[in-house]
Amino acid sequence: MPHTYEYPRAALTVDCVVFGLDDEELKVMLIQRGQEPFEGQWALPGGFVHVDETLEEAARRELEEETGLHKVYLEQLYTFGTVDRDPRERVVSVAYYALVKMSDHKVQAATDARDAAWFGVHDVPSLAFDHAEILQTALERLRSKLRYQPIGFELLPKKFTLSQLQRLYELVLERDLDKRNFRKRVLAMELLIETDEVEQDVAHRAARLYRFDERKYRRLVKAGFNFEL
Amino acid sequence: MPHTYEYPRAALTVDCVVFGLDDEELKVMLIQRGQEPFEGQWALPGGFVHVDETLEEAARRELEEETGLHKVYLEQLYTFGTVDRDPRERVVSVAYYALVKMSDHKVQAATDARDAAWFGVHDVPSLAFDHAEILQTALERLRSKLRYQPIGFELLPKKFTLSQLQRLYELVLERDLDKRNFRKRVLAMELLIETDEVEQDVAHRAARLYRFDERKYRRLVKAGFNFEL
Repeated sequence: MPHTYEYPRAALTVDCVVFGLDDEELKVMLIQRGQEPFEGQWALPGGFVHVDETLEEAARRELEEETGLHKVYLEQLYTFGTVDRDPRERVVSVAYYALVKMSDHKVQAATDARDAAWFGVHDVPSLAFDHAEILQTALERLRSKLRYQPIGFELLPKKFTLSQLQRLYELVLERDLDKRNFRKRVLAMELLIETDEVEQDVAHRAARLYRFDERKYRRLVKAGFNFEL
Repeated sequence: MPHTYEYPRAALTVDCVVFGLDDEELKVMLIQRGQEPFEGQWALPGGFVHVDETLEEAARRELEEETGLHKVYLEQLYTFGTVDRDPRERVVSVAYYALVKMSDHKVQAATDARDAAWFGVHDVPSLAFDHAEILQTALERLRSKLRYQPIGFELLPKKFTLSQLQRLYELVLERDLDKRNFRKRVLAMELLIETDEVEQDVAHRAARLYRFDERKYRRLVKAGFNFEL
Protein backbone atom coordinates (compact mmCIF):
# COMPACT_ATOMS: atom_id res chain seq x y z
CA MET A 1 0.00 0.00 0.00
CA PRO A 2 1.78 3.16 -1.17
CA HIS A 3 1.64 6.46 0.72
CA THR A 4 1.44 9.68 -1.20
CA TYR A 5 2.34 13.22 -0.18
CA GLU A 6 2.26 16.61 -1.90
CA TYR A 7 5.94 17.32 -1.18
CA PRO A 8 8.88 14.89 -1.07
CA ARG A 9 9.66 13.68 2.44
CA ALA A 10 12.87 12.62 4.11
CA ALA A 11 12.97 9.18 5.66
CA LEU A 12 13.47 9.22 9.43
CA THR A 13 15.78 6.86 11.29
CA VAL A 14 17.27 6.44 14.76
CA ASP A 15 20.86 5.42 15.48
CA CYS A 16 22.23 4.35 18.85
CA VAL A 17 25.70 4.82 20.28
CA VAL A 18 25.90 2.23 23.04
CA PHE A 19 28.79 2.65 25.47
CA GLY A 20 30.06 -0.04 27.79
CA LEU A 21 33.10 -0.33 30.05
CA ASP A 22 35.37 -3.23 30.82
CA ASP A 23 38.54 -3.29 32.90
CA GLU A 24 40.64 -1.90 30.08
CA GLU A 25 38.67 0.55 28.04
CA LEU A 26 35.52 2.33 27.00
CA LYS A 27 33.68 0.26 24.40
CA VAL A 28 31.05 0.92 21.78
CA MET A 29 28.60 -1.62 20.41
CA LEU A 30 28.57 -2.04 16.65
CA ILE A 31 26.59 -4.24 14.29
CA GLN A 32 27.69 -5.64 10.99
CA ARG A 33 25.23 -4.68 8.28
CA GLY A 34 23.42 -7.57 6.59
CA GLN A 35 22.17 -5.57 3.62
CA GLU A 36 22.94 -2.71 1.26
CA PRO A 37 24.02 0.02 1.44
CA PHE A 38 27.32 -0.70 3.20
CA GLU A 39 26.57 -4.45 3.35
CA GLY A 40 29.12 -6.23 5.50
CA GLN A 41 30.42 -2.98 7.01
CA TRP A 42 30.17 -2.09 10.69
CA ALA A 43 27.64 0.52 11.80
CA LEU A 44 25.75 1.83 14.79
CA PRO A 45 22.59 -0.14 15.55
CA GLY A 46 19.49 1.68 14.29
CA GLY A 47 16.77 1.76 11.69
CA PHE A 48 13.62 3.43 10.40
CA VAL A 49 11.14 5.08 12.77
CA HIS A 50 7.63 3.69 12.47
CA VAL A 51 4.95 6.31 11.97
CA ASP A 52 3.12 5.23 15.16
CA GLU A 53 6.02 5.12 17.64
CA THR A 54 7.98 7.88 19.39
CA LEU A 55 11.65 8.42 18.60
CA GLU A 56 12.76 6.84 21.87
CA GLU A 57 10.48 3.85 21.30
CA ALA A 58 12.06 3.41 17.87
CA ALA A 59 15.57 3.59 19.38
CA ARG A 60 14.74 1.00 22.05
CA ARG A 61 13.04 -1.30 19.56
CA GLU A 62 15.94 -1.19 17.10
CA LEU A 63 18.46 -1.70 19.89
CA GLU A 64 16.67 -4.80 21.11
CA GLU A 65 16.10 -6.17 17.60
CA GLU A 66 19.66 -5.69 16.47
CA THR A 67 21.67 -6.35 19.63
CA GLY A 68 19.34 -7.95 22.19
CA LEU A 69 19.94 -5.03 24.58
CA HIS A 70 16.96 -3.70 26.52
CA LYS A 71 16.22 -1.57 29.58
CA VAL A 72 19.33 0.53 29.13
CA TYR A 73 20.01 4.15 30.08
CA LEU A 74 19.14 6.05 26.90
CA GLU A 75 19.33 9.73 26.06
CA GLN A 76 18.83 11.69 22.86
CA LEU A 77 22.13 12.92 21.46
CA TYR A 78 21.65 15.00 18.30
CA THR A 79 19.83 14.88 14.98
CA PHE A 80 21.96 14.45 11.86
CA GLY A 81 20.50 15.92 8.70
CA THR A 82 23.22 16.45 6.10
CA VAL A 83 21.49 16.16 2.73
CA ASP A 84 23.61 13.33 1.29
CA ARG A 85 24.39 11.28 4.38
CA ASP A 86 22.62 8.22 2.93
CA PRO A 87 23.34 7.13 -0.67
CA ARG A 88 19.75 5.94 -1.21
CA GLU A 89 17.79 9.10 -0.51
CA ARG A 90 17.38 11.90 2.03
CA VAL A 91 17.48 10.32 5.47
CA VAL A 92 17.45 12.32 8.71
CA SER A 93 18.65 10.40 11.75
CA VAL A 94 17.92 11.11 15.39
CA ALA A 95 20.88 9.73 17.33
CA TYR A 96 20.69 8.41 20.88
CA TYR A 97 23.39 7.29 23.24
CA ALA A 98 23.04 4.48 25.73
CA LEU A 99 25.12 3.50 28.76
CA VAL A 100 25.26 -0.17 29.59
CA LYS A 101 26.58 -2.21 32.49
CA MET A 102 28.45 -4.71 30.36
CA SER A 103 28.38 -7.43 33.01
CA ASP A 104 24.55 -7.40 33.06
CA HIS A 105 23.94 -7.63 29.34
CA LYS A 106 24.62 -10.35 26.84
CA VAL A 107 24.76 -9.15 23.27
CA GLN A 108 23.37 -11.05 20.32
CA ALA A 109 22.91 -10.07 16.69
CA ALA A 110 19.38 -10.31 15.32
CA THR A 111 17.11 -9.32 12.40
CA ASP A 112 18.97 -7.52 9.65
CA ALA A 113 22.30 -7.41 11.48
CA ARG A 114 24.81 -10.15 10.73
CA ASP A 115 26.78 -9.69 13.88
CA ALA A 116 26.95 -7.46 16.92
CA ALA A 117 30.09 -6.86 18.97
CA TRP A 118 31.88 -4.49 21.33
CA PHE A 119 34.82 -2.45 20.05
CA GLY A 120 37.21 -0.24 21.99
CA VAL A 121 36.30 3.36 21.12
CA HIS A 122 39.85 3.91 19.82
CA ASP A 123 39.79 0.74 17.79
CA VAL A 124 36.64 0.90 15.66
CA PRO A 125 36.65 -0.25 12.04
CA SER A 126 35.60 2.07 9.21
CA LEU A 127 31.92 2.83 9.82
CA ALA A 128 28.96 3.07 7.42
CA PHE A 129 27.19 6.38 6.64
CA ASP A 130 28.25 9.30 8.90
CA HIS A 131 28.41 6.99 11.90
CA ALA A 132 32.01 7.93 12.70
CA GLU A 133 30.82 11.52 13.19
CA ILE A 134 27.87 10.39 15.32
CA LEU A 135 30.22 8.31 17.48
CA GLN A 136 32.55 11.30 17.88
CA THR A 137 29.65 13.54 18.91
CA ALA A 138 28.54 10.94 21.46
CA LEU A 139 32.04 10.68 22.93
CA GLU A 140 32.21 14.44 23.38
CA ARG A 141 28.77 14.51 24.98
CA LEU A 142 29.69 11.69 27.37
CA ARG A 143 32.88 13.52 28.38
CA SER A 144 31.26 16.87 28.96
CA LYS A 145 28.26 15.33 30.68
CA LEU A 146 30.40 13.26 33.03
CA ARG A 147 31.99 16.48 34.25
CA TYR A 148 28.79 17.87 35.68
CA GLN A 149 26.50 14.86 36.12
CA PRO A 150 27.42 11.52 37.65
CA ILE A 151 25.90 9.52 34.78
CA GLY A 152 29.01 7.36 34.65
CA PHE A 153 27.51 5.16 37.34
CA GLU A 154 25.33 3.66 34.62
CA LEU A 155 28.48 2.06 33.20
CA LEU A 156 29.60 0.40 36.45
CA PRO A 157 28.31 -2.71 38.23
CA LYS A 158 25.77 -2.00 41.01
CA LYS A 159 28.53 -2.18 43.62
CA PHE A 160 31.95 -0.83 42.81
CA THR A 161 35.19 0.28 44.40
CA LEU A 162 36.44 3.86 44.34
CA SER A 163 39.28 2.66 42.11
CA GLN A 164 36.80 1.36 39.56
CA LEU A 165 35.01 4.69 39.64
CA GLN A 166 38.24 6.60 39.16
CA ARG A 167 39.21 4.31 36.29
CA LEU A 168 35.87 5.08 34.62
CA TYR A 169 36.52 8.82 34.82
CA GLU A 170 40.08 8.36 33.58
CA LEU A 171 38.99 6.24 30.62
CA VAL A 172 36.21 8.58 29.56
CA LEU A 173 38.05 11.85 30.17
CA GLU A 174 41.30 10.37 28.82
CA ARG A 175 43.55 11.73 31.51
CA ASP A 176 45.02 10.57 34.80
CA LEU A 177 43.40 11.87 37.96
CA ASP A 178 45.03 12.35 41.32
CA LYS A 179 43.74 9.56 43.55
CA ARG A 180 43.47 11.51 46.78
CA ASN A 181 41.84 14.52 45.18
CA PHE A 182 39.42 12.36 43.19
CA ARG A 183 38.25 10.50 46.30
CA LYS A 184 37.80 13.69 48.24
CA ARG A 185 35.68 15.29 45.52
CA VAL A 186 33.62 12.24 44.71
CA LEU A 187 32.81 11.60 48.37
CA ALA A 188 31.99 15.29 48.84
CA MET A 189 29.13 14.90 46.32
CA GLU A 190 27.52 12.67 49.00
CA LEU A 191 25.98 10.40 46.40
CA LEU A 192 27.90 7.24 47.29
CA ILE A 193 26.65 4.79 49.89
CA GLU A 194 29.32 2.72 51.60
CA THR A 195 28.22 -0.93 51.72
CA ASP A 196 29.49 -3.41 54.33
CA GLU A 197 31.01 -5.51 51.56
CA VAL A 198 34.48 -5.60 50.07
CA GLU A 199 35.59 -6.82 46.68
CA GLN A 200 36.12 -10.56 46.22
CA ASP A 201 38.90 -12.66 44.71
CA VAL A 202 41.62 -10.04 44.63
CA ALA A 203 45.28 -10.56 45.37
CA HIS A 204 45.76 -7.17 47.06
CA ARG A 205 43.91 -5.94 50.14
CA ALA A 206 40.18 -6.06 49.25
CA ALA A 207 38.71 -2.58 48.79
CA ARG A 208 35.38 -1.35 50.12
CA LEU A 209 32.38 -1.56 47.76
CA TYR A 210 30.11 1.45 47.25
CA ARG A 211 26.80 1.91 45.53
CA PHE A 212 25.26 4.97 43.93
CA ASP A 213 22.42 6.78 45.73
CA GLU A 214 20.12 7.18 42.74
CA ARG A 215 17.13 8.40 44.73
CA LYS A 216 19.08 11.19 46.34
CA TYR A 217 20.58 12.05 42.97
CA ARG A 218 17.15 12.42 41.34
CA ARG A 219 15.96 14.57 44.25
CA LEU A 220 18.96 16.88 43.90
CA VAL A 221 18.61 17.14 40.13
CA LYS A 222 14.97 18.17 40.59
CA ALA A 223 16.08 20.85 43.04
CA GLY A 224 18.44 22.23 40.38
CA PHE A 225 21.61 21.04 42.09
CA ASN A 226 24.73 21.18 39.99
CA PHE A 227 27.32 18.40 40.19
CA GLU A 228 30.81 19.30 39.21
CA LEU A 229 33.73 17.04 39.70
CA MET B 1 3.34 16.36 -8.34
CA PRO B 2 2.67 13.74 -5.67
CA HIS B 3 5.44 11.73 -3.98
CA THR B 4 4.84 8.11 -3.15
CA TYR B 5 6.57 5.86 -0.58
CA GLU B 6 6.16 2.25 0.46
CA TYR B 7 5.70 3.13 4.16
CA PRO B 8 3.97 6.15 5.69
CA ARG B 9 6.38 8.97 6.55
CA ALA B 10 6.34 11.60 9.23
CA ALA B 11 6.57 15.22 8.14
CA LEU B 12 9.72 16.98 9.35
CA THR B 13 9.74 20.52 10.74
CA VAL B 14 12.12 22.85 12.55
CA ASP B 15 11.14 25.18 15.39
CA CYS B 16 13.27 27.98 16.79
CA VAL B 17 13.41 29.31 20.33
CA VAL B 18 14.94 32.78 19.93
CA PHE B 19 16.16 34.38 23.13
CA GLY B 20 16.89 38.06 23.55
CA LEU B 21 17.67 40.26 26.54
CA ASP B 22 16.59 43.75 27.41
CA ASP B 23 17.26 45.71 30.60
CA GLU B 24 14.48 44.01 32.47
CA GLU B 25 14.16 40.42 31.41
CA LEU B 26 14.97 37.47 29.21
CA LYS B 27 12.70 37.49 26.17
CA VAL B 28 11.56 34.94 23.63
CA MET B 29 10.44 35.71 20.09
CA LEU B 30 7.01 34.40 19.13
CA ILE B 31 4.96 34.60 15.96
CA GLN B 32 1.21 34.68 15.66
CA ARG B 33 0.02 31.92 13.38
CA GLY B 34 -1.74 33.02 10.21
CA GLN B 35 -3.24 29.65 9.38
CA GLU B 36 -4.70 26.47 10.83
CA PRO B 37 -4.04 24.60 12.99
CA PHE B 38 -3.92 27.01 15.93
CA GLU B 39 -4.72 29.99 13.68
CA GLY B 40 -4.31 33.26 15.57
CA GLN B 41 -2.40 31.57 18.41
CA TRP B 42 1.20 32.36 19.31
CA ALA B 43 3.90 29.85 18.46
CA LEU B 44 7.63 29.45 17.96
CA PRO B 45 8.80 30.43 14.49
CA GLY B 46 9.39 27.37 12.32
CA GLY B 47 8.12 25.30 9.44
CA PHE B 48 8.66 22.33 7.16
CA VAL B 49 12.15 21.18 6.18
CA HIS B 50 12.72 21.09 2.43
CA VAL B 51 14.09 17.82 1.13
CA ASP B 52 17.19 19.53 -0.30
CA GLU B 53 18.28 21.63 2.69
CA THR B 54 19.99 20.70 5.95
CA LEU B 55 18.16 21.08 9.25
CA GLU B 56 20.12 24.18 10.19
CA GLU B 57 19.48 25.73 6.77
CA ALA B 58 15.77 25.12 7.27
CA ALA B 59 15.88 26.73 10.72
CA ARG B 60 17.71 29.82 9.42
CA ARG B 61 15.39 30.12 6.43
CA GLU B 62 12.23 29.88 8.53
CA LEU B 63 13.61 32.32 11.06
CA GLU B 64 14.32 34.89 8.39
CA GLU B 65 11.01 34.31 6.60
CA GLU B 66 8.89 34.55 9.70
CA THR B 67 10.73 37.13 11.80
CA GLY B 68 13.30 38.86 9.59
CA LEU B 69 16.12 37.63 11.86
CA HIS B 70 19.31 36.41 10.24
CA LYS B 71 22.94 35.73 11.11
CA VAL B 72 22.11 34.76 14.68
CA TYR B 73 23.86 32.34 17.04
CA LEU B 74 21.98 29.08 16.46
CA GLU B 75 22.34 25.67 18.06
CA GLN B 76 20.36 22.48 17.83
CA LEU B 77 18.33 21.87 20.98
CA TYR B 78 16.39 18.60 20.84
CA THR B 79 14.09 16.67 18.52
CA PHE B 80 10.47 16.35 19.56
CA GLY B 81 8.68 13.28 18.28
CA THR B 82 5.59 12.55 20.37
CA VAL B 83 3.16 10.76 18.07
CA ASP B 84 0.23 13.18 18.42
CA ARG B 85 2.01 16.52 18.83
CA ASP B 86 0.40 17.89 15.64
CA PRO B 87 -3.38 17.47 15.08
CA ARG B 88 -2.91 17.09 11.30
CA GLU B 89 -0.61 14.11 11.11
CA ARG B 90 2.67 12.73 12.45
CA VAL B 91 5.16 15.60 12.56
CA VAL B 92 8.64 15.33 14.05
CA SER B 93 10.25 18.66 14.88
CA VAL B 94 13.94 19.41 15.28
CA ALA B 95 14.13 22.36 17.66
CA TYR B 96 16.90 24.96 17.62
CA TYR B 97 17.63 27.79 19.97
CA ALA B 98 19.05 31.13 18.96
CA LEU B 99 20.66 33.92 20.95
CA VAL B 100 20.16 37.43 19.64
CA LYS B 101 21.59 40.82 20.50
CA MET B 102 18.24 42.58 20.61
CA SER B 103 19.71 46.00 19.90
CA ASP B 104 21.15 44.79 16.57
CA HIS B 105 18.03 43.16 15.18
CA LYS B 106 14.72 44.56 14.08
CA VAL B 107 11.92 42.05 14.03
CA GLN B 108 9.22 41.91 11.41
CA ALA B 109 6.51 39.37 10.67
CA ALA B 110 6.50 37.85 7.20
CA THR B 111 5.07 35.01 5.05
CA ASP B 112 2.56 32.89 6.94
CA ALA B 113 3.01 34.66 10.27
CA ARG B 114 0.57 37.44 11.12
CA ASP B 115 2.77 39.07 13.66
CA ALA B 116 6.10 38.58 15.41
CA ALA B 117 6.96 39.96 18.83
CA TRP B 118 9.16 39.57 21.90
CA PHE B 119 7.62 38.23 25.11
CA GLY B 120 9.14 37.97 28.58
CA VAL B 121 9.87 34.27 29.16
CA HIS B 122 7.64 34.36 32.24
CA ASP B 123 4.87 36.12 30.41
CA VAL B 124 4.19 34.06 27.29
CA PRO B 125 0.63 33.46 26.09
CA SER B 126 -0.73 29.94 25.60
CA LEU B 127 1.36 28.39 22.83
CA ALA B 128 0.41 26.22 19.85
CA PHE B 129 1.41 22.52 19.59
CA ASP B 130 3.95 21.38 22.25
CA HIS B 131 5.79 24.70 21.98
CA ALA B 132 5.50 25.40 25.71
CA GLU B 133 7.49 22.20 26.32
CA ILE B 134 10.06 23.15 23.66
CA LEU B 135 10.46 26.59 25.27
CA GLN B 136 10.91 24.99 28.70
CA THR B 137 13.57 22.64 27.33
CA ALA B 138 15.38 25.59 25.73
CA LEU B 139 15.33 27.56 28.99
CA GLU B 140 16.85 24.64 30.87
CA ARG B 141 19.52 24.19 28.20
CA LEU B 142 20.38 27.89 28.27
CA ARG B 143 20.69 27.81 32.06
CA SER B 144 22.86 24.72 32.23
CA LYS B 145 24.97 25.82 29.27
CA LEU B 146 25.60 29.27 30.72
CA ARG B 147 27.12 27.60 33.77
CA TYR B 148 29.96 26.02 31.84
CA GLN B 149 30.22 28.04 28.61
CA PRO B 150 30.16 31.81 28.28
CA ILE B 151 27.54 31.76 25.50
CA GLY B 152 25.62 34.51 27.25
CA PHE B 153 27.82 37.06 25.51
CA GLU B 154 25.75 36.44 22.40
CA LEU B 155 22.85 38.16 24.16
CA LEU B 156 24.77 41.34 25.08
CA PRO B 157 25.80 44.30 22.96
CA LYS B 158 29.37 44.10 21.61
CA LYS B 159 30.60 46.29 24.47
CA PHE B 160 29.08 45.89 27.90
CA THR B 161 29.66 46.69 31.55
CA LEU B 162 30.30 44.03 34.19
CA SER B 163 26.94 45.00 35.70
CA GLN B 164 25.20 44.16 32.45
CA LEU B 165 26.99 40.83 32.35
CA GLN B 166 26.01 40.04 35.93
CA ARG B 167 22.40 41.03 35.20
CA LEU B 168 22.39 38.59 32.26
CA TYR B 169 23.52 35.74 34.49
CA GLU B 170 21.00 36.69 37.17
CA LEU B 171 18.12 36.85 34.69
CA VAL B 172 18.96 33.53 33.06
CA LEU B 173 19.86 31.64 36.23
CA GLU B 174 17.04 33.32 38.15
CA ARG B 175 19.01 34.08 41.27
CA ASP B 176 20.99 36.95 42.72
CA LEU B 177 24.75 36.71 42.50
CA ASP B 178 27.27 38.29 44.81
CA LYS B 179 28.80 41.21 42.93
CA ARG B 180 32.36 40.91 44.19
CA ASN B 181 32.50 37.16 43.76
CA PHE B 182 30.94 37.33 40.29
CA ARG B 183 33.49 39.89 39.09
CA LYS B 184 36.37 37.93 40.47
CA ARG B 185 35.28 34.71 38.77
CA VAL B 186 34.33 36.26 35.47
CA LEU B 187 37.63 38.14 35.22
CA ALA B 188 39.52 34.99 36.19
CA MET B 189 38.22 33.33 33.01
CA GLU B 190 40.42 35.85 31.17
CA LEU B 191 37.98 36.13 28.30
CA LEU B 192 37.06 39.79 28.79
CA ILE B 193 39.00 42.58 27.14
CA GLU B 194 38.87 45.91 28.91
CA THR B 195 38.20 48.69 26.38
CA ASP B 196 39.22 52.31 26.93
CA GLU B 197 35.58 53.37 26.78
CA VAL B 198 32.99 53.89 29.47
CA GLU B 199 29.22 53.75 29.23
CA GLN B 200 27.41 56.85 27.95
CA ASP B 201 24.41 58.85 29.16
CA VAL B 202 24.18 57.47 32.67
CA ALA B 203 23.33 59.41 35.83
CA HIS B 204 25.74 57.45 38.05
CA ARG B 205 29.49 57.20 37.59
CA ALA B 206 30.05 55.74 34.11
CA ALA B 207 31.32 52.15 34.25
CA ARG B 208 34.07 50.63 32.13
CA LEU B 209 33.03 48.80 28.95
CA TYR B 210 34.37 45.33 28.16
CA ARG B 211 34.20 43.14 25.13
CA PHE B 212 34.35 39.37 24.80
CA ASP B 213 37.52 37.73 23.47
CA GLU B 214 35.86 35.36 21.04
CA ARG B 215 39.08 34.26 19.34
CA LYS B 216 40.68 33.25 22.59
CA TYR B 217 37.47 31.52 23.60
CA ARG B 218 37.42 29.40 20.43
CA ARG B 219 41.07 28.50 20.92
CA LEU B 220 40.42 27.37 24.49
CA VAL B 221 37.33 25.37 23.51
CA LYS B 222 39.39 23.56 20.89
CA ALA B 223 41.98 22.73 23.53
CA GLY B 224 39.25 21.15 25.64
CA PHE B 225 39.19 23.89 28.25
CA ASN B 226 36.26 23.84 30.62
CA PHE B 227 34.62 27.11 31.73
CA GLU B 228 32.79 27.00 34.98
CA LEU B 229 31.44 30.03 36.66
